[in-house]
Amino acid sequence: MSNQSNKNKGVELLCIGTELLLGEIVNSNAQWLAEELAILGIPHYIQTVVGDNPIRLKEAILDSAKRSEVLITTGGLGPTPDDITTATIAEAFETPLKENSKIWAEIKEKTSTNSEISASSNKKQSLFPLGAQIIPNPSGTAPGFIWSPKKDFTIICFPGVPSELKKMWVQSVASWLREYEGAKGTILSSVFKFSGISESTLAEQLSDLLESKNPTVAPYASSGEVKIRLTAQSSNSEAALKLLKPLEKEILNRTGLKCYGSNNENLASVVLELLRKRGETLAIAESCSGGGLGAALTAVPKASEVFLGGVIAYSNKIKQALLHVEDASLQRYGAVSNQVAKEMAKGVKSKLGSNWSIAISGLAGPGGETNSKPVGQVHIAIAGPKTTEVYQKNFGTHRGRLEIQKLSVICGLDSLRLLLLNQS
Amino acid sequence: MSNQSNKNKGVELLCIGTELLLGEIVNSNAQWLAEELAILGIPHYIQTVVGDNPIRLKEAILDSAKRSEVLITTGGLGPTPDDITTATIAEAFETPLKENSKIWAEIKEKTSTNSEISASSNKKQSLFPLGAQIIPNPSGTAPGFIWSPKKDFTIICFPGVPSELKKMWVQSVASWLREYEGAKGTILSSVFKFSGISESTLAEQLSDLLESKNPTVAPYASSGEVKIRLTAQSSNSEAALKLLKPLEKEILNRTGLKCYGSNNENLASVVLELLRKRGETLAIAESCSGGGLGAALTAVPKASEVFLGGVIAYSNKIKQALLHVEDASLQRYGAVSNQVAKEMAKGVKSKLGSNWSIAISGLAGPGGETNSKPVGQVHIAIAGPKTTEVYQKNFGTHRGRLEIQKLSVICGLDSLRLLLLNQS
Repeated sequence: MSNQSNKNKGVELLCIGTELLLGEIVNSNAQWLAEELAILGIPHYIQTVVGDNPIRLKEAILDSAKRSEVLITTGGLGPTPDDITTATIAEAFETPLKENSKIWAEIKEKTSTNSEISASSNKKQSLFPLGAQIIPNPSGTAPGFIWSPKKDFTIICFPGVPSELKKMWVQSVASWLREYEGAKGTILSSVFKFSGISESTLAEQLSDLLESKNPTVAPYASSGEVKIRLTAQSSNSEAALKLLKPLEKEILNRTGLKCYGSNNENLASVVLELLRKRGETLAIAESCSGGGLGAALTAVPKASEVFLGGVIAYSNKIKQALLHVEDASLQRYGAVSNQVAKEMAKGVKSKLGSNWSIAISGLAGPGGETNSKPVGQVHIAIAGPKTTEVYQKNFGTHRGRLEIQKLSVICGLDSLRLLLLNQS
Repeated sequence: MSNQSNKNKGVELLCIGTELLLGEIVNSNAQWLAEELAILGIPHYIQTVVGDNPIRLKEAILDSAKRSEVLITTGGLGPTPDDITTATIAEAFETPLKENSKIWAEIKEKTSTNSEISASSNKKQSLFPLGAQIIPNPSGTAPGFIWSPKKDFTIICFPGVPSELKKMWVQSVASWLREYEGAKGTILSSVFKFSGISESTLAEQLSDLLESKNPTVAPYASSGEVKIRLTAQSSNSEAALKLLKPLEKEILNRTGLKCYGSNNENLASVVLELLRKRGETLAIAESCSGGGLGAALTAVPKASEVFLGGVIAYSNKIKQALLHVEDASLQRYGAVSNQVAKEMAKGVKSKLGSNWSIAISGLAGPGGETNSKPVGQVHIAIAGPKTTEVYQKNFGTHRGRLEIQKLSVICGLDSLRLLLLNQS
């Protein structure tokens, strides 16, 4: 790549697919690739999404060629007529397509072992711009490619299926990019995660730090949590780390227990780790969250060392039969109550023989509210070796079902985290 | 808006936030807004993402002003120094900011009732470009605005917090856009969803239909399912619907039970609806999926009419204690086996008194594989009023933990769906 280039050092992303413009899928590829680029220290200033339209796709490719040194595309490498990425790229740079017979043989083999008719429509997946280097696709039929149509511009094309893209990136492209000169110098980023505090309150506590230029310090909010991102730029990662360390320490000093973790940690992984260190186990009883708390816990590898399991007690009958919730409590207080949450927590803890338990019972809506119990009211109980604590939350009637379920899970995990930390 | 404009009729999206470029969050706002625009029949050809950088943000805004009539932005309206959207837009069109005293009073009230210190940093959230129309934010402190800096260009700005954006859209912006002349004419889209068939096999079955120009017919794949999107354009929705109907019928005729649903349906909602119609109930027993099946079922409103609950039997002890899995079966076959999945399904069905049950036991990894049982091996049992069926799946050692969990849930739901349909 030319050192004389006036263009941005760095990479841009172009995600191709009408399904993205129609909002039928979320652009998880952009998120994943952006994260990988950040880890490699490769700057990345812009992302674009266009549909399966050859004119607009060509425009987007040529715009990028003016602006950036490397363009990564996703999507449009499939076997169907709306998959136009390879042909459009070749046309944009007036280059012919050439069949790769080795790839064609592989595709035929893959489609036959899949016990499906060998799809002749897959044929186009063995065509590449003359001079392109192929990126093998170990799990699908769409190989990608790396191609430099001109001196200071390289295009890297991936299929849109996330699992295929990820494997191809790890096996082939990451090493190519590490050699890319735009990557010289290092961006290091760390993220701290907070619960039980709003973005603006946190920003006031850290207001002087937010002025910092290197590292930069930026807060942002997502449903149920706030994060602070620190980003340091330097000639190498050791120097960048040195810039980060004192600020990280200062942030932790000021925020205390409100900061639950950093980087790849999430509330579930933090809670499991606290319990693992104590040699203790966890069971759960879920009503309105319906399995979401279990899913969050078991998304963490090795969760089984701490998490025994639980009961999804969606109906009252099951609350009684499996968790020994008293009929009188259900009659008197209703399923959405501190009393029933407490009995669920105690019941699942004794039934499963764990040291700790979390129980969630609430009203996720839509519908089901009464005069005294609005949608969004959730009761969370934590039973431990000595006591059972219970918390009532009102997340607000304006929230949707999925958000109330998610906030219930976050609150259950954070309540246990705080109990564990305040005990030790 | 000018009728003489050479620009694209239609809207483009600009999502602002360094967290998107660093891959720390997925751009769910782009997906949601894209879907809403499609429902309103408003064409939308390009999406862009830039970071919290005033120079590049200004460039992106001015590029859009050349290309499109309406620009929708998300993000950068918060109280912190990296929130620069309003100021940058005003600067791009050389317009001063003006304080709105009513909004400032509201913000002060909101921050005080939140029992947090009234954040003087929120002050900037009451500044707007001169002439802008404010979009109230009922749930947060960041109002949005609609502003036409010049004759044929309108900018609509939203905060980045998804729940706030959605409410503001529904309450204020959707009606504005319905009046927008670019929306004249209608795009109608419908999506059919398939399980148990690959994208290329499906595309071959429908190859002649894929040539259709209006409606267009496009297949795409995501992990565990394939979709077909039909999109018709016409002067009004009745005419567009007339274009869609015959093609929809033809696709359903050719694909039969492989097509599990359409549009907003998902496998969980389809299975719950089938059971609701039969007046039957469902219970579940999850091992490797850890609560994900319950979460999928209870994400559907009114799930409680059909779904009783279940047991997350992550440890073997719980498989025995709560589901009455035989010790001998665990010893002889191991937890990841047809036999244990069957006993789990029968156990939870009898314990919870449901008509049907789904049980999942498998190896999601990483680690834990043996010579005979690789990561990705999952056993799924369905117990019904008469028989218990069991299926072994090998999703492949190359898949990650979350993908294996997700595929297990899909397969469990689809197996029950097919049993119900083949019975009736």
